Amino acid sequence: MEYDIKIPGPEALKEMDPAQLDELCARIRSFLVESVMKTGGHLSSNLGAVELTVALERTFDPFRDRIVFDVGHQSYVHKLLTGRQAGFETLRSLGGMSGFPKPSESDADAFIAGHASNSISVALGMARARTLTGGDYSVVCVTGDGALTGGLAFEALNDAGQSGERLVVVLNDNGMSIKKNVGAVARMLAAQRVKPAYYKFKKGYRKVMFAIPGGKAIYKFNHSVKEALKHAILHNSTFEELGFQYIGPVNGHDIRQLTYLLEAAKSAPGPVLVHVVTKKGKGYEPAESEPDRYHGVSPRGERCEGESFSSVFGRRITELARNDGRICAITAAMEQGTGLAGFAEEFPDRFFDVGIAEEHAVAMAAGMAKQGLVPVFAVYSSFLQRAFDMLIHDVAILGLHVVFAVDRAGLVGEDGETHHGAFDVGFLRQVPGMTVWSPSSAAELRDMLDAAVAASGPAAVRYPRGSEGAYRDGGADAVRLLREGTDVLLVGYGRLINEINAAAELLAAEGISAGVLKLGRICPIDFDAVCAEAGKTGRVCVVEETVENGSVGESIAAAISERGIKARVLLKNLGSSFAGHGSVADLLSALGLDAKGIAAAVGEELSRG
Amino acid sequence: MEYDIKIPGPEALKEMDPAQLDELCARIRSFLVESVMKTGGHLSSNLGAVELTVALERTFDPFRDRIVFDVGHQSYVHKLLTGRQAGFETLRSLGGMSGFPKPSESDADAFIAGHASNSISVALGMARARTLTGGDYSVVCVTGDGALTGGLAFEALNDAGQSGERLVVVLNDNGMSIKKNVGAVARMLAAQRVKPAYYKFKKGYRKVMFAIPGGKAIYKFNHSVKEALKHAILHNSTFEELGFQYIGPVNGHDIRQLTYLLEAAKSAPGPVLVHVVTKKGKGYEPAESEPDRYHGVSPRGERCEGESFSSVFGRRITELARNDGRICAITAAMEQGTGLAGFAEEFPDRFFDVGIAEEHAVAMAAGMAKQGLVPVFAVYSSFLQRAFDMLIHDVAILGLHVVFAVDRAGLVGEDGETHHGAFDVGFLRQVPGMTVWSPSSAAELRDMLDAAVAASGPAAVRYPRGSEGAYRDGGADAVRLLREGTDVLLVGYGRLINEINAAAELLAAEGISAGVLKLGRICPIDFDAVCAEAGKTGRVCVVEETVENGSVGESIAAAISERGIKARVLLKNLGSSFAGHGSVADLLSALGLDAKGIAAAVGEELSRG
Repeated sequence: MEYDIKIPGPEALKEMDPAQLDELCARIRSFLVESVMKTGGHLSSNLGAVELTVALERTFDPFRDRIVFDVGHQSYVHKLLTGRQAGFETLRSLGGMSGFPKPSESDADAFIAGHASNSISVALGMARARTLTGGDYSVVCVTGDGALTGGLAFEALNDAGQSGERLVVVLNDNGMSIKKNVGAVARMLAAQRVKPAYYKFKKGYRKVMFAIPGGKAIYKFNHSVKEALKHAILHNSTFEELGFQYIGPVNGHDIRQLTYLLEAAKSAPGPVLVHVVTKKGKGYEPAESEPDRYHGVSPRGERCEGESFSSVFGRRITELARNDGRICAITAAMEQGTGLAGFAEEFPDRFFDVGIAEEHAVAMAAGMAKQGLVPVFAVYSSFLQRAFDMLIHDVAILGLHVVFAVDRAGLVGEDGETHHGAFDVGFLRQVPGMTVWSPSSAAELRDMLDAAVAASGPAAVRYPRGSEGAYRDGGADAVRLLREGTDVLLVGYGRLINEINAAAELLAAEGISAGVLKLGRICPIDFDAVCAEAGKTGRVCVVEETVENGSVGESIAAAISERGIKARVLLKNLGSSFAGHGSVADLLSALGLDAKGIAAAVGEELSRG
Repeated sequence: MEYDIKIPGPEALKEMDPAQLDELCARIRSFLVESVMKTGGHLSSNLGAVELTVALERTFDPFRDRIVFDVGHQSYVHKLLTGRQAGFETLRSLGGMSGFPKPSESDADAFIAGHASNSISVALGMARARTLTGGDYSVVCVTGDGALTGGLAFEALNDAGQSGERLVVVLNDNGMSIKKNVGAVARMLAAQRVKPAYYKFKKGYRKVMFAIPGGKAIYKFNHSVKEALKHAILHNSTFEELGFQYIGPVNGHDIRQLTYLLEAAKSAPGPVLVHVVTKKGKGYEPAESEPDRYHGVSPRGERCEGESFSSVFGRRITELARNDGRICAITAAMEQGTGLAGFAEEFPDRFFDVGIAEEHAVAMAAGMAKQGLVPVFAVYSSFLQRAFDMLIHDVAILGLHVVFAVDRAGLVGEDGETHHGAFDVGFLRQVPGMTVWSPSSAAELRDMLDAAVAASGPAAVRYPRGSEGAYRDGGADAVRLLREGTDVLLVGYGRLINEINAAAELLAAEGISAGVLKLGRICPIDFDAVCAEAGKTGRVCVVEETVENGSVGESIAAAISERGIKARVLLKNLGSSFAGHGSVADLLSALGLDAKGIAAAVGEELSRG
């Protein structure tokens, strides 16, 4: 198809002069705003990275060199410049273009991204592979200042700094993760940004940049440039003590300066860190003034679905905190996303944003609980995977009462495989002594959160992205029989109970009597109650948004077998593969986990006798 | 009972003068060497921490203040000084004293420890709880230089440094984790240790220390001391940029200097880091010269059990690497423990010790695999919990061929709950596309490692601590029927196959015909083969050294049910609790997972009809 705004490929970039590059950046911004406001997606971070990405694709060969993005939702410009403009029509929809780098989508995507702070590790591995296999390509990673609060990034810097490997770490410093950054490193970066030499350099570099006779864009890294560089850049003892050559800070919206310093970094013989200062939302006024709001945008005209589970959680924990001074809330850089903004405002002394540092969040919560507080860690399911060891080692061995508000449990939709909460059912239930609730409605979330706060030992409440469906009742029962049935018992929990109820209706229309048993608590499971109901029909189908190994269905099958109940169990879940991206409704349908799919599977199973 | 060497309690310490403290330290060393050489346990690290611990217990009140140890095997002196001398008779044995801090053992043990790098997080949580609840106790954590390579420690420093909380981080810097340290931070610490001012301070501090009239041990932090401190200590920009007041480096074997500076740290209004330089094995010549060898010692006269699985792995991967230049080996500070010393010597360019940084190890391996290498990460099962997210996000989404040599899978014995490999069966099998082998013999380990290296996608071989038992056959079969039986089918894998075979013999003696099916591959499981055998007896018992949720037994029960096979499944495993410490044999017996326990459980089950 034809676009009003045309974006050239990476080869064309090399021929462009600075004025043409500036014009291209303006064109890219127009395209991004128009396209992303239509389809939904990540806007602010991509607008902030336009010049940086253009400079990267111009300096490096995205198909030959390896450009590794950290939390890859800032890779839209990279996608645009590597032949995927058409993909923006289908951005993040089922079967469409991913919102993150994806090697299966293009050879220009060096790696996947989605969980922060991994890019330096991945890039170091690639650089070591390059060296061992005798390759001569460059390896660059583009990481954010927020990602630097993650311990993984530090582990990688510590290793890379002493490795001597030729490796460029581009630090895209916009002063915020999704909201503002926290911690000592953020403070250090902020101090670095305002050092006077930065501005001196900003004025001075133009003398040497693009000063090559004939104005040819093919860049020659000559002596005068090297000299200018030596005198222009600042020192940063932290990165230098870690073994990196430090270049910066660089104005991330000045394409000349960026190209110049990236060329310098490319030619360095060892690990280099280029500190690039950018402005989130740059060039689009609404996003510049409210970058948080435009971090991720919904498609125009998307219907409002009612209060999100995150918001319900945030309101309820704030209410509970009013009557219990022991309650603290912890977030790992997700104050807004987890619904904790109100809590933070009302109880600033009891609110802790630790940065993108889930491991620390859990271990710190354990220390708090040991000394008598009731810490509540609100975290997305897929990010809590980071703290699996701390759940076991720091919380569960001592049976400490830490509450986990596990948001985005189950499929999350458009963010796809890196973000689905497809594992927490299995890994939370592995943790000895852990109690896990899975509410099906806003009222249940409130009641189960109350139960978790009042419980002892580690306790988790897991709830999905988005808002409640048809099921609206409250309570915190371990099991609840929603519908009697004689042919088959459908078992489920969380939001899927809506699909299961609808499936029972579809089956009824076919003359099949399906009971529905809702689990409120998925660990420990009330096996007596489940087995009693299972025995009545002799057929059970357990429906879940989780991978099969470690699923509730497996535990139920084992309990039924061990007790000698005559009931055959069918499992309906995500199996052993990663679900892709797309709307939750589209994904459930594709995976056979919507009402129609459940009814069809059960009908088929029963017909086999 | 009466001891030749008597150790006083913490109160007595406060009354002692420096000469008496020196004498006490000598007495403690004698006791440790004598006692630990008899019972087995950690020696070098405790010998190195004698003066430091005495100074800590003298400066702080271990029962009121909170002293949090990192990797707590250096807590023996603390145990001695807090009334547990008698416990050393039963150190690390079933029902005896733990080798790690344990709050259930003494109120002086503030927290558990076992996985490195957690202590700063835990201590910060405690300090925040102290402040929020209006307490006035001190919180101290004692961490190692090795633990500083872990990202968790950095996440905590980043948060603690800007928190303003009153918190003392004691860095016990002996220049090694278990062997020597790696990375840029280790280099920075080493540079700090040899700065000239350190020695100047060493000479100067005596002028003010213990210069209080009357020689009373109750310490007064007066003006002259403050002045001396200001002029004597060094700066360290890295810790200071992180927001910590830095004190050090301090000679960790000089009780006067230590007491002096810990008092200073105690009175500081915000976060302080005290850099203490110690020598591992100090005061016991064999341990000083070979600290690695005396890190953990076995009881005198313990029989040699044959080549360990770790050693078999190390030899085999080295053989494979000779014929395949793509093979690299990665360790997280466990070169010796994982059997990789030979590989490191023969292939130094293809050997990577990343420090205590399991997350980075896995993400880096993913980058290597993406660019064509075959990385093999050798790691203890319980430490791989740290990298659960990277298994999913960085390795599995792209289906990368990273090989995991998962050592210490199952019960490890004396190190107890923090170290048992009780979760890898569940969490590895959750990872989409992961293949998991569980060898029962040295020959199988070799053959399965070959298979894993030749496989595609993520592949793990998990094997226990120690060496093989009676089962000696090789191969890499998914399932193997070891014994036909008509009454019941016993299913197991790994070293427990020896107990299972013996159980079948015991049952035979009672007239019960038990078949034995060995799983070589536990993910994916060959369900067709298992179900076919299960259907023949109608009774199955799955025996495993893992927690029940996520176990192989649950998957088998589900598969049997889903296929409509008439067979009742009994699960024998660790249930949903933490196994304690003691020898593996004692633990298996206590848990009913030895031959006798298995036979008894099966006999009882069959008698119920």
